[in-house]
Amino acid sequence: MGSDIRVTVWNEFRHEKKSEEIKKIYPEGMHTVIANYLNSVEGVMAKTAVLDEPEHGLTEEVLNSTDVLIWWGHMAHKEVKDEIVERVYRKVLNGMGLIVLHSGHFSKIFIKLMGTSCILRWREAGEKERLWVVNPSHPIADGIPDYIELPHEEMYGEHFDIPNPDALVFISWFKGGEVFRSGCCFFRGKGKIFYFRPGHETYPTYYDKNIMKIIANAVKWAKPVNGPNLSDGKSKEPLEKI
Amino acid sequence: MGSDIRVTVWNEFRHEKKSEEIKKIYPEGMHTVIANYLNSVEGVMAKTAVLDEPEHGLTEEVLNSTDVLIWWGHMAHKEVKDEIVERVYRKVLNGMGLIVLHSGHFSKIFIKLMGTSCILRWREAGEKERLWVVNPSHPIADGIPDYIELPHEEMYGEHFDIPNPDALVFISWFKGGEVFRSGCCFFRGKGKIFYFRPGHETYPTYYDKNIMKIIANAVKWAKPVNGPNLSDGKSKEPLEKI
Amino acid sequence: MGSDIRVTVWNEFRHEKKSEEIKKIYPEGMHTVIANYLNSVEGVMAKTAVLDEPEHGLTEEVLNSTDVLIWWGHMAHKEVKDEIVERVYRKVLNGMGLIVLHSGHFSKIFIKLMGTSCILRWREAGEKERLWVVNPSHPIADGIPDYIELPHEEMYGEHFDIPNPDALVFISWFKGGEVFRSGCCFFRGKGKIFYFRPGHETYPTYYDKNIMKIIANAVKWAKPVNGPNLSDGKSKEPLEKI
Amino acid sequence: MGSDIRVTVWNEFRHEKKSEEIKKIYPEGMHTVIANYLNSVEGVMAKTAVLDEPEHGLTEEVLNSTDVLIWWGHMAHKEVKDEIVERVYRKVLNGMGLIVLHSGHFSKIFIKLMGTSCILRWREAGEKERLWVVNPSHPIADGIPDYIELPHEEMYGEHFDIPNPDALVFISWFKGGEVFRSGCCFFRGKGKIFYFRPGHETYPTYYDKNIMKIIANAVKWAKPVNGPNLSDGKSKEPLEKI
Repeated sequence: MGSDIRVTVWNEFRHEKKSEEIKKIYPEGMHTVIANYLNSVEGVMAKTAVLDEPEHGLTEEVLNSTDVLIWWGHMAHKEVKDEIVERVYRKVLNGMGLIVLHSGHFSKIFIKLMGTSCILRWREAGEKERLWVVNPSHPIADGIPDYIELPHEEMYGEHFDIPNPDALVFISWFKGGEVFRSGCCFFRGKGKIFYFRPGHETYPTYYDKNIMKIIANAVKWAKPVNGPNLSDGKSKEPLEKI
Repeated sequence: MGSDIRVTVWNEFRHEKKSEEIKKIYPEGMHTVIANYLNSVEGVMAKTAVLDEPEHGLTEEVLNSTDVLIWWGHMAHKEVKDEIVERVYRKVLNGMGLIVLHSGHFSKIFIKLMGTSCILRWREAGEKERLWVVNPSHPIADGIPDYIELPHEEMYGEHFDIPNPDALVFISWFKGGEVFRSGCCFFRGKGKIFYFRPGHETYPTYYDKNIMKIIANAVKWAKPVNGPNLSDGKSKEPLEKI
Repeated sequence: MGSDIRVTVWNEFRHEKKSEEIKKIYPEGMHTVIANYLNSVEGVMAKTAVLDEPEHGLTEEVLNSTDVLIWWGHMAHKEVKDEIVERVYRKVLNGMGLIVLHSGHFSKIFIKLMGTSCILRWREAGEKERLWVVNPSHPIADGIPDYIELPHEEMYGEHFDIPNPDALVFISWFKGGEVFRSGCCFFRGKGKIFYFRPGHETYPTYYDKNIMKIIANAVKWAKPVNGPNLSDGKSKEPLEKI
Repeated sequence: MGSDIRVTVWNEFRHEKKSEEIKKIYPEGMHTVIANYLNSVEGVMAKTAVLDEPEHGLTEEVLNSTDVLIWWGHMAHKEVKDEIVERVYRKVLNGMGLIVLHSGHFSKIFIKLMGTSCILRWREAGEKERLWVVNPSHPIADGIPDYIELPHEEMYGEHFDIPNPDALVFISWFKGGEVFRSGCCFFRGKGKIFYFRPGHETYPTYYDKNIMKIIANAVKWAKPVNGPNLSDGKSKEPLEKI
C-alpha cells in the first residue's frame, strides 16, 4: 500500500560471515531477521542493504525511497565511506528516521549526529540485562511490560557520552552492577533518531518478541512528518529603512 | 470504527451565551466548531461536554470512553468542581490525552498537572499573532507551514510559568512586542498533554484551517498508548537475608 | 558572612524518636547530622526545623531568611498542614531552592510541585545501591567519582511517576534488579528543585562523604538567583486601535 | 587569584580591520571589549586570541589554561584549521566551557558539537530586537530584567536547526516579525556550551550592560566542574563464568 512506512535495514554483515557461532544464530544476517519481522507488521515494508554492496547499498535512489533507516555496525565502522555518511546525514536532517542499534553507537553517522564522543563502558560477559520502562506514555513503550529480561547480553554502562535525549524511554540494569540509558529519542533537523542498546551479535536478541515490538514501535515513531521548510529572510512586517 | 480516537471536547460555554458579539462567531459554542472539524478527520470521532451539564458532562462513563479530552475554560474556572478535576487528573495520569486551549492555562486541571502558577503576561488589543514552528520533525507540525498568521488575537507573553515542556513545537510573535511558547508537549504519568495558545473567544480562530490541523495532529499525538502498569516491589534477583 | 547560602534543614523527626535502632544511628535526628555537615562547608550556613515545632518551624520569618530548604519526611506526610505546604510552595516558585530527600517523594509539597503521583516501586531489603553519574558536566556531580556504593539501602524502582527532569544527574542500580532516576533537577517558577533518593532512616547514609558532598553541591546549585519579575501587559510597541 | 575563572576570548578579528564603520565601533576588536569587561568582573580573568595568530592563538598550552572559551567568527569560518577545531572539540568534551556568540552559530566547532546544520533565517535591516527571559530561575538570568531591548540588530529567525537545548533562557522578538531561541544551554560530555545570539559587528551590542552581564553569568555557569572520568568495564558484582 502506498502509505506503508518504507524501512531499509542496514547491516555491515561481517560478524555473521566470519564466526561459525554467530552464523548459527543469524545464518542470513541480523538484517534479514529484523526485516522479516518488520514485514510481518501491518503498515511497514522493509528491505535490506549491506556494507559490501555498491555504495554500501545506500544509493540516492534507495535513500529517496526510505522513510526509516535501521543501522547495525561494529567491526567495520571505519570502512563506511565518508560520502555515504554525509548522504545519510543530510537525509536524516531532511526528515528520514534513523534507528541505531547496539554497537552502532560508535558508527560515523551516529557520532556525527550526536556531536559527542559516544563512548561508554562495556564488558562481554554474557550477563543478564533488564530493561525498565521509564516513560510509559511514550509510543515506543506501547504494548511493552514494565520490564524486559534478556538472559545474556553484552554490558554497556554509564557514563554514555551522548546529548541528553529528547525522551528517555528505557534504562537498563546489568547483573554485573551497571546501568545504561538504553532507549533514547532525539529530534534532529526534520528527522527523528532512536538509539536502542540491545543486540550483541553473539546472542539471539533480535528473536525476542518484545525487542522486536520496540523496534517496530520506533519505526512508527520515527517516520517522517511533512514538516515545513526554511523560508527566506524577507521581513514579515514593514520596517523603516535605516 | 473501533479504532477511532474518541475525543471529548469540553467547553465552559458561557462567553458564547453572554455576549452577542461572541455568539455571532460561535452560535453553538466553540466546542461544537471544534468537534465538527474533528469529526471530519479520518480516524477521529468527537463528542462534546459542557460545564452546565450534570458532573460538567464528565461522568466516569464519559471519561472511560474518552481517549483525548480537549479543554476550553476561562470565566468559570472556579465553578469546576474539585472532584471532577480530581477525576480528570487521575484519568490523565492513567493515559488519557489532554489538550488545553488558550485561557485553559488557568484551569484547575492544568495548574494541578503542571505544579506551577501558570501565570503569564496578557493584553486584549486584537493584535497580530504569528506562530513559528520550532520543531519541524514533531508530528504536531505535520503539514503546517513554517509560520501561521492570525490577524487578531489576545496577546499572551513570557514569562509563562510552566515547567520546561518535553517538546516545544511553536513560539508566537506578537505585534505589540512579546513572544510566547505557544505549543507545548508534556509527558505526565501514562498520559500526554498539549497546551496550545490560540483561541480567544472574540476571534474566529477555530475556523482557521492550520489551527484546526494542529489540533487534529495533537489529538493523534496524545492518544493513549498501552503502557505498562507499575508492578510490585518483589525482588527480581535473589537477595541474601539481612 | 552576608553572602552565605542560608539553609533550613527540615525533618519530620519521628522515626528517630520511636525506634531505638534508628535513634542509635541518628540520636539527634537526621536534620542535625545534615545541618552539622553543611555548617562545615564554606559559604553555607544551616539551621534546622522540625514538624512538631509551631507552624512546623516554617514561619514566614524563617522562610524569608531561607535560601534553600531541605526536606525529609515519611510517616507523617499527612500531618503537614496544607497552609504550610502552600507557604513553602509560593516561596519555591518565588525563588527559594528545595532539596527533597528519599521518602520526601511522597510529601505534599513535592507532589504539588511535580503535578504527578510520584509513586514508585519499593522494597526494604537492605540491599546494595550503586549511584552512577550520568551527567559529568553538572555542578551537582562536582568532585564525585563515576559511581558511589551504599552497602545497604531501601530499594526504589522505576517507573517513578515524575515529570521528565530538566537535568538527570544520577541513576541508581539495585542488587535486587531495579534501576531508578535518583538525582533529578527541576526548574519551577523562579525556583530550583533537586530530588535525591538515598537516605532511608535505618541506615547511616547521611554520614557518607559522597552523599553529603552531593547535598552540598545541590545547595549551591539551588540557591536563588535574582531573576526578573513578571511585568504588566502594556504593549512594548505601538498598536493601532481596533 | 588561583581560583579565578580563566577565560579566553577568541575572535576572527577581520571585520574590524576591513570596515571603517566597524573599526569605529570596535577599534581594537570585539574580543578586546569583551575581555576588558570580563576583567572588571570579580572572579574572572580574561585573555584574548585571534585567528591570525599562530595556531589561531589556541595552542595546547593556551587551551590547557582556559576554563571557558568565548567564540566570535563569521566571514572566515573556513579558514579555521580542522586540527584546531578538533583540539577545541576535545577540550570541550573534557570539561572546558564554550560560549558561542552570534554568527558563531556557523563555526566549524559549533556545528561539530551540535551535530546539526545550524542554519537559520536572517536579515540585515538594523531592526529592533527584544530578548525575553523564559527561565527566571536559571543562573544566566541572574540580575537581568524581564526583557532587554537592542535598538538595532541583525535578525535571526526560526527554525534554528539545533538540538533542543538542555535549558532555554532567552527568546528574541524582532520587529520584522520573527522569533528566535537566542540563549541556549547545552551539556556535552564533561563540558557546557552556551549559545548567545546578539552581537552583529555593525552595532555596539557588546557595550550593552545587560548583554555583558549575561556573558559574565554564562562564564560562571560554564566553568568546568571536577566531574568523574570513565572507568574501565570491570564487573562491579561477581558474575558466573559462561
